[in-house]
Amino acid sequence: MARPRSTSLRALKVAVISPDPALAQDEHAADHARQAQRSAALVHALLDAGYEVVAVLPATPDLDDRIAQARPDLVIVDAESGVRDLLEHVVLASRDTPRPIVLFTDDDDTETAQLAISAGVTAYIVDGLKPSRVKPVIEVALARFQREQGLRAELDDARTQLSERKLIERAKGIVMQRQGCSEDEAFGRMRKLAMEKGLKLAEVAQRILDTASLI
Amino acid sequence: MARPRSTSLRALKVAVISPDPALAQDEHAADHARQAQRSAALVHALLDAGYEVVAVLPATPDLDDRIAQARPDLVIVDAESGVRDLLEHVVLASRDTPRPIVLFTDDDDTETAQLAISAGVTAYIVDGLKPSRVKPVIEVALARFQREQGLRAELDDARTQLSERKLIERAKGIVMQRQGCSEDEAFGRMRKLAMEKGLKLAEVAQRILDTASLI
Repeated sequence: MARPRSTSLRALKVAVISPDPALAQDEHAADHARQAQRSAALVHALLDAGYEVVAVLPATPDLDDRIAQARPDLVIVDAESGVRDLLEHVVLASRDTPRPIVLFTDDDDTETAQLAISAGVTAYIVDGLKPSRVKPVIEVALARFQREQGLRAELDDARTQLSERKLIERAKGIVMQRQGCSEDEAFGRMRKLAMEKGLKLAEVAQRILDTASLI
Repeated sequence: MARPRSTSLRALKVAVISPDPALAQDEHAADHARQAQRSAALVHALLDAGYEVVAVLPATPDLDDRIAQARPDLVIVDAESGVRDLLEHVVLASRDTPRPIVLFTDDDDTETAQLAISAGVTAYIVDGLKPSRVKPVIEVALARFQREQGLRAELDDARTQLSERKLIERAKGIVMQRQGCSEDEAFGRMRKLAMEKGLKLAEVAQRILDTASLI
């Protein structure tokens, strides 16, 4: 996964997502004019802060494809209200390619905020869309995202080690039984095969387990 | 570790930390009057939002003892400037008892923000000390903190499983060698001993390894 890089190397690519105007009801036309103004102000603040705005998208059902095309380093969701309706689309769009998600809203409902954080939103900012705050908010969100990704990578690594170890143990048991050899010998034979075939020990173990019922 | 609970059960206990006025230089008296005003406004906003303020402390070298006495669920650092000088004391004070740390500052330096996040600050809020924002900022910080603690608990669990498995394997090898028995038998004997003594299998393994050189 490509990590967002510091802005000192190249401009950070940002995609801005706002609610889908097609979902607007006629009586809320004023809300939507205000939302459009908010988002325009946000885009200006992003450009002034030196970011590259690679897409400005409504949260339509094809959002995941459109974000995938734009390949942003970071997604900003700007929703004066209606955060819950947006969340699903936005989170789905970053499921396979984790990236920081910053959400600006006026919705200060505690449950909505908790829902957003547990859905993977990096920063949930209430009533804070002031041009001078945009850059620090984004920089803090990047740092937090990287911290969480680091923790996830450590967890993945520990879990991989554990499952590989279990595989290797099970395969070793089969080799000992079939060959009537000691633990050390079984391990030595598996390691020798791994070296000969250019495989990882866990891959050799997996092949032993896959074929043990046949041979 | 006690997790901060929802404010619906009981009031969340908050400690407010600000820079040590003893470090002030005379020419900065005006800065310190402004800092004192900021902190007073923050305490009012916290009380209005329904939080319990259990301590208001300057960041003196004995901060860790004083925070330990106050036992807050959450620490708020309020430092118009001079964040770096404060960080060390605050992070040290929460090293053994992890708790969410929210930092309000006007220092928008990117490096300072990154340093704060990597030192364990949950939320770094620039120029956002508006009474209406205090509650959503705290609620989001609690959600983020719980998310990170959950991830850390998973990581601890995976690492413990891995290290226990290594211990058990090594001990099993010793039993096999000493008793001249099979892997299954060695495992069975260790499990039997664990049940008899009311120990975890990993604890039996550790005792075998501890005493193997003696017996």
